[in-house]
Amino acid sequence: MEARVAIFIGSASDESVVTPCADVLKQLGIPYVFTITSAHRTPERTATLVDDLEARGCQVYICAAGMAAHLAGAVAARTTKPVIGIPIAASALNGMDALLATLQMPPGFPVATVALDKAGARNAAWLAAEILALHDPALHERLLAARAKFAADVAAAGDELAARHQPC
Amino acid sequence: MEARVAIFIGSASDESVVTPCADVLKQLGIPYVFTITSAHRTPERTATLVDDLEARGCQVYICAAGMAAHLAGAVAARTTKPVIGIPIAASALNGMDALLATLQMPPGFPVATVALDKAGARNAAWLAAEILALHDPALHERLLAARAKFAADVAAAGDELAARHQPC
Amino acid sequence: MEARVAIFIGSASDESVVTPCADVLKQLGIPYVFTITSAHRTPERTATLVDDLEARGCQVYICAAGMAAHLAGAVAARTTKPVIGIPIAASALNGMDALLATLQMPPGFPVATVALDKAGARNAAWLAAEILALHDPALHERLLAARAKFAADVAAAGDELAARHQPC
Amino acid sequence: MEARVAIFIGSASDESVVTPCADVLKQLGIPYVFTITSAHRTPERTATLVDDLEARGCQVYICAAGMAAHLAGAVAARTTKPVIGIPIAASALNGMDALLATLQMPPGFPVATVALDKAGARNAAWLAAEILALHDPALHERLLAARAKFAADVAAAGDELAARHQPC
Amino acid sequence: MEARVAIFIGSASDESVVTPCADVLKQLGIPYVFTITSAHRTPERTATLVDDLEARGCQVYICAAGMAAHLAGAVAARTTKPVIGIPIAASALNGMDALLATLQMPPGFPVATVALDKAGARNAAWLAAEILALHDPALHERLLAARAKFAADVAAAGDELAARHQPC
Amino acid sequence: MEARVAIFIGSASDESVVTPCADVLKQLGIPYVFTITSAHRTPERTATLVDDLEARGCQVYICAAGMAAHLAGAVAARTTKPVIGIPIAASALNGMDALLATLQMPPGFPVATVALDKAGARNAAWLAAEILALHDPALHERLLAARAKFAADVAAAGDELAARHQPC
Amino acid sequence: MEARVAIFIGSASDESVVTPCADVLKQLGIPYVFTITSAHRTPERTATLVDDLEARGCQVYICAAGMAAHLAGAVAARTTKPVIGIPIAASALNGMDALLATLQMPPGFPVATVALDKAGARNAAWLAAEILALHDPALHERLLAARAKFAADVAAAGDELAARHQPC
Amino acid sequence: MEARVAIFIGSASDESVVTPCADVLKQLGIPYVFTITSAHRTPERTATLVDDLEARGCQVYICAAGMAAHLAGAVAARTTKPVIGIPIAASALNGMDALLATLQMPPGFPVATVALDKAGARNAAWLAAEILALHDPALHERLLAARAKFAADVAAAGDELAARHQPC
Repeated sequence: MEARVAIFIGSASDESVVTPCADVLKQLGIPYVFTITSAHRTPERTATLVDDLEARGCQVYICAAGMAAHLAGAVAARTTKPVIGIPIAASALNGMDALLATLQMPPGFPVATVALDKAGARNAAWLAAEILALHDPALHERLLAARAKFAADVAAAGDELAARHQPC
Repeated sequence: MEARVAIFIGSASDESVVTPCADVLKQLGIPYVFTITSAHRTPERTATLVDDLEARGCQVYICAAGMAAHLAGAVAARTTKPVIGIPIAASALNGMDALLATLQMPPGFPVATVALDKAGARNAAWLAAEILALHDPALHERLLAARAKFAADVAAAGDELAARHQPC
Repeated sequence: MEARVAIFIGSASDESVVTPCADVLKQLGIPYVFTITSAHRTPERTATLVDDLEARGCQVYICAAGMAAHLAGAVAARTTKPVIGIPIAASALNGMDALLATLQMPPGFPVATVALDKAGARNAAWLAAEILALHDPALHERLLAARAKFAADVAAAGDELAARHQPC
Repeated sequence: MEARVAIFIGSASDESVVTPCADVLKQLGIPYVFTITSAHRTPERTATLVDDLEARGCQVYICAAGMAAHLAGAVAARTTKPVIGIPIAASALNGMDALLATLQMPPGFPVATVALDKAGARNAAWLAAEILALHDPALHERLLAARAKFAADVAAAGDELAARHQPC
Repeated sequence: MEARVAIFIGSASDESVVTPCADVLKQLGIPYVFTITSAHRTPERTATLVDDLEARGCQVYICAAGMAAHLAGAVAARTTKPVIGIPIAASALNGMDALLATLQMPPGFPVATVALDKAGARNAAWLAAEILALHDPALHERLLAARAKFAADVAAAGDELAARHQPC
Repeated sequence: MEARVAIFIGSASDESVVTPCADVLKQLGIPYVFTITSAHRTPERTATLVDDLEARGCQVYICAAGMAAHLAGAVAARTTKPVIGIPIAASALNGMDALLATLQMPPGFPVATVALDKAGARNAAWLAAEILALHDPALHERLLAARAKFAADVAAAGDELAARHQPC
Repeated sequence: MEARVAIFIGSASDESVVTPCADVLKQLGIPYVFTITSAHRTPERTATLVDDLEARGCQVYICAAGMAAHLAGAVAARTTKPVIGIPIAASALNGMDALLATLQMPPGFPVATVALDKAGARNAAWLAAEILALHDPALHERLLAARAKFAADVAAAGDELAARHQPC
Repeated sequence: MEARVAIFIGSASDESVVTPCADVLKQLGIPYVFTITSAHRTPERTATLVDDLEARGCQVYICAAGMAAHLAGAVAARTTKPVIGIPIAASALNGMDALLATLQMPPGFPVATVALDKAGARNAAWLAAEILALHDPALHERLLAARAKFAADVAAAGDELAARHQPC
């Protein structure tokens, strides 16, 4: 089966935070794989998954992890496809641990880091879609339509709020 | 309709945090507009709103946003009227993201940043009032009266507490 | 003598960081006072200065201080004129101490906080000018001209850089 | 009435966090005053309170405040008696704002800063007691007794825990 | 002229930090544009540059800025092409301001954020190359070769170090 | 009684956070002592416990504490056995206080610091087991089995998640 | 010999940062001891020094240390005299490690923490003097004179600066 | 050749910071290997090195890295021997990135983290020695002797300082 995007989470406990990423991909009609693999508990599973997905034409990897989030880096070391990292706030440190462990990669092995938690989960999907849309005009149209809807929603909500606070 | 102050929020989810800003303006009798517009989702709406409000005599812009809070900066780039920024704690990072993204503006495009969240929302209104009161003696009187009430309230509460903890 | 803006620094050692603030005011033709006063070492001098400057028509106070920067708050407690705070990085903590001590004011006593150090010093002056320009059309023109020059300078430098990196 | 220690809180909302400070003073038999006063809302009340308490023989000031916590500094500027500061976590920033605004005082105006929130409230009282005990042998005895009780309580709880986890 | 990647810096002072980004693109044979534009000083130039580059087939935008780094977000609001953000440490805050202002984008407008400063500048280029290589087999080969060289260089340096510290 | 590992907590309130450490040791069949002792409240109890446990053959000390966590350091100063520190988030500062107070030990007195809170409590036990397993082949086998189970659990959960998100 | 104040530093490398503390004590005529002792390297020396100094009438302990600064806490555990802590910035973390390790003491064992580095070193001396002055009227006079000089110095420097920036 | 300890650094640029680790091991007579390997650039070299060193009887791994420091975690995923992590301050973030990326490991894969930079490099060696000394009485004696020398050095330096500051 084709899978243009792979979503890896480092722990089953990250599923609910990252599900919005899968939702956006589904909404955009992008086939994806969503599974669990760990940089430390299952390094071999991680390697095998990447190799298999390469063969199935996967073009973008999305990796979400909390604490010392090494998963995106471990995937980035195994592929030259773009890797997107979602830091998860999973300790008392409010996600700063995962954020820095995902972002501060050494030269040659970039991880395209997005915002913490659910906002980042959604943006990982939008970013993957932007990358795929470079060679997929239909997807590009869907992106433009989504943006138009974002704008319309803000305008409608803003006008409604303004009407409730009419100056006099 | 006259609107001396505009309050922009970047997302409908910020409304309850920023409503105290509108409440203070109302209490001081300052006509205001309160609406939603986003630096990223609706850059054109933001520009149009500023242009329209300039024409209606708006003198102070108050912009509240969370995360990578760019809204105040986007407004500051479009007007030379004073722009006040309220950072909102809307991610796991406790508002430090919005705080720094609002405050650390480059030279020439200041954003008058106030405290995080509801305390800042109130202070944005007080700051706007201080600016308008420079040329509005009646408003200046209302500011002085509000301060006198602040002081009286603290004194009353303090005396009540002291009475409960009388030394012997 | 007229002084539309007062610049207070908490310590002689802040002078060089804050001088760009005075430079911008001078460039815009705004008469200002620039002096040293401390929230802790000279609370009475601070109070007297504010009272005297009120009488001379001062409309905006700019206060710069490092560490537990209380100066802007002390001035804000004595006047209902707008008070702008410049946090100075003056300890090992990179200015985070001054930033939070200036910004996080309680409701009713706003300090319009700008960026740390020299960038903030310049922006304090630009913000003061924006406030004064609400009732000073000539100053408003000078602000617009300054912004046009900012844009032209960026464009010129950008074109020069682009020319050195011509794609082929 | 004699008051050897004064406890000032900057806002009525700090009362429950600081009450453990009063409790420790009461337990140690130290007469105290507990009231509300604000560096910004009631600077004159603050000054008057300090002057009155000096006359009544107050020897230590304890000041608790949140956000841009200037209260301890304002008191330190008015007296040469020891001033103890309790930072309160009262914004999204987890108390780091109050902590730095209390601690980072400039030379000549020390604030003896203790831990955040209730732990600090208790320690402010213990520190005040240590200062007073320098010239109060009976109080010194009560301090020694309190320490002995701390140690006994830890030992008892530790032995109880160890008994539940007996190695075999 | 074709330009597959655009590098925008927010200020002339960022040039030396970002030049390694251009160097990597050059080394990989990727045509790029490198220029200066500001989210605040030149919002129109920014918009025009993006529109022109879209027409010239630009596929990836790289935006570097310091302090309240809004440039990447402003570009992301104008295009659905992937936008990569390089935070620059340009204030006393060690780049944390630029990092959070770049990374914490709201849903729908991702910025693929890379590490701070020169390491991030290099990785922005590597990430852009990974995106372009999805449809450019020759570039993909050059990426694999670069990785092989990275590995060989580490191994050589590691062996040399080990030889100097031979256990006995 | 033999006790190969000692777990010390600085306060009874840390028990529930640290119990997972005892659970892992129990699961691995490692005899341990679990008790309460404080660097400040019971320095003598701490010293006596260490001396007694040395005599009983204790080989690893695990110390958990919150706030200004000095307990691990106090133990490290009294023994040359390995000391593992678990920082506990026990104040508004999210554990950053305990983390730095545990980790940043001066040369000669290392504390092997693990992650904050329950994750760290578990890892303290795993680290102690790794140290003991250097000379305990049966324990080494149990460690390998535990790792195999970690991997199997991740794979099973990952496959289950993937099955729910089958691409089509 | 009498020693009313003891200054302990945790490492010889802290001497130059803490010397201003000794200078202020000398200027105020307060006999002090200044020596090196470590919570970890010399716990017994620390205990002996405290016991000896108690016998010599020492009334205030000042402890300066960097990194995981446990020295003030170790002294606080051994005496009920007031203990003042000076955090030293001695690692890459800008002193935040020492600051939190000094400040966040558990109830019953307060450390009166002052600002980081030289500013804190001076304030430790001023705070010790304030404590001693409670029962030393001559010292109290010297404190008042020092404050008058602080104020006069600020006023003179402020007037000189104002004269250089005369408005016209 | 026997190698009881392996020191891995992630980049040649870390050599000078980590050399004190090798120096301490040499001083204690512990045979070690010191080489460079990267979690991302040379994952296979890392795996091969660990496998080879296991066969040669290596008992402790010390891994030093900066930024998103994944090296210690990668090694911990491959061995059940104790792994010690030294975070290196190698970006503008003062080492907080490396610190959190090293420390916050998920359960089952502990990294015994020590202080940042050179202090941590030395302590990694002392910690490795403490682990090895559990079954090496001669090494245990050398540890005790080293501690005695630490104490003697502090006492000598402290007495010298005290002599220069004699109270009178």
